Amino acid sequence: MTSADQSDHIVKAYDDEFSRLRKMFSQMSGLAESQLDGALRAVARRDEELAAAVRNKDQEIDDLETEIDALVVRMLALRQPVANDLRFIVAMLRMSADIERMGDYAKNIAKRVHALAQLPVSSSNPVTRSVSTLGRLVQAMLKDVFDACTDEDLKKAVAVWEADQEVDALYTSIFRELLTYMMEDPRFITAGTHLLFIAKNLERIGDHATNIAETLHYRVDGKRLGDSRPKDDDTSVMVVGGPEDGPPGAA
Amino acid sequence: MTSADQSDHIVKAYDDEFSRLRKMFSQMSGLAESQLDGALRAVARRDEELAAAVRNKDQEIDDLETEIDALVVRMLALRQPVANDLRFIVAMLRMSADIERMGDYAKNIAKRVHALAQLPVSSSNPVTRSVSTLGRLVQAMLKDVFDACTDEDLKKAVAVWEADQEVDALYTSIFRELLTYMMEDPRFITAGTHLLFIAKNLERIGDHATNIAETLHYRVDGKRLGDSRPKDDDTSVMVVGGPEDGPPGAA
Repeated sequence: MTSADQSDHIVKAYDDEFSRLRKMFSQMSGLAESQLDGALRAVARRDEELAAAVRNKDQEIDDLETEIDALVVRMLALRQPVANDLRFIVAMLRMSADIERMGDYAKNIAKRVHALAQLPVSSSNPVTRSVSTLGRLVQAMLKDVFDACTDEDLKKAVAVWEADQEVDALYTSIFRELLTYMMEDPRFITAGTHLLFIAKNLERIGDHATNIAETLHYRVDGKRLGDSRPKDDDTSVMVVGGPEDGPPGAA
Repeated sequence: MTSADQSDHIVKAYDDEFSRLRKMFSQMSGLAESQLDGALRAVARRDEELAAAVRNKDQEIDDLETEIDALVVRMLALRQPVANDLRFIVAMLRMSADIERMGDYAKNIAKRVHALAQLPVSSSNPVTRSVSTLGRLVQAMLKDVFDACTDEDLKKAVAVWEADQEVDALYTSIFRELLTYMMEDPRFITAGTHLLFIAKNLERIGDHATNIAETLHYRVDGKRLGDSRPKDDDTSVMVVGGPEDGPPGAA
């Protein structure tokens, strides 16, 4: 980690900085998990108070990203790390940007609770339940990818990367389901749109978990995971209620 | 840029790397502009061939990001830059990630052309025209923010950062307009949903332009632009056709 001619003092400072970096990363990932959990519970219970708490707490994630950025730039400038250390530090920069985005999506999910609470759609509606299932899948991805980072577990990173396909498939089926409901009952359109964006936000959180898995893999193994799998869902080409589907409501 | 005891050879190599970095960044930003332009023209004309070309070309942006990343890590490891150079290099890393995301959103817009082409909504529909207006606003932001980067023009960067509020306001009005149309005519729901996501993608591209303006400002001036303005739109709390709005279709 350091050359023999550097003083113990510098080695110690360098080690301390690495510890701080690891600690901030683990705080940030823990916050992202609890924010997503809070947002999903707020949606399920139409709990506006919990939603407001999630919205307010997002700033803490943003602040941690700013702190990590500042520390990384400081370490690059003062310690001029190379090889493994450099890769680790650059990976932290990248991963913390992914976690910050996850936080934004969790906040955006929480924001939609207010609209949903006023609308005629119960949380026992089947499509709301599908959205909850999607939420649980994405929560599991988050837990696994952060565990993979802590343990440098590449097998787990690959599993997260593969799980993202399951998330995309479920998101695609929810998209179809929601459009069909909206066609059958126009009173459901506003709620359906908010649920669509909630599902899309969850799908995007899954993408960022996949990014983190890729960054970890590249850092530890030097090989890229990402090139073979397109990171987009199938809903952008979907026509529901068009000529392929027959009349609205028939699907 | 380098200490006096380094050989001319190293200075030259270092300068060359900076030139390459600038060149790749300008290629990448040029591509992002032309990809957005192509996607918007494909939507306006329901041109599936142009849309396919945009989808295929996105890989070039992704490849440039990978190349910039690799060069940055190489420069950090071999040149151990400090001060201005270090800030410039780290800013490149951050900005190229923003441009890569812009490319993804342009691709996603292009993907939706196929679905729109099959659906009963003409491009002269007022809401389609509002989406085009939003597209032109975001295109202007892109042009301005990349000009600001080239000229290190902080006044222009601040103007981009302020223009984002206009984009958010227009996006919010489009959201309301689209939901109202969907309620009035359920045959419009699928097309309306794709237009909603197109508008959302445009709004996100505007956010990334804002990020770049913030990164530029921080790099040149050392002060953060970003903390005072929340980077989210108002649609996440919007209820259309709910109690506030009267019955569906009345808005």
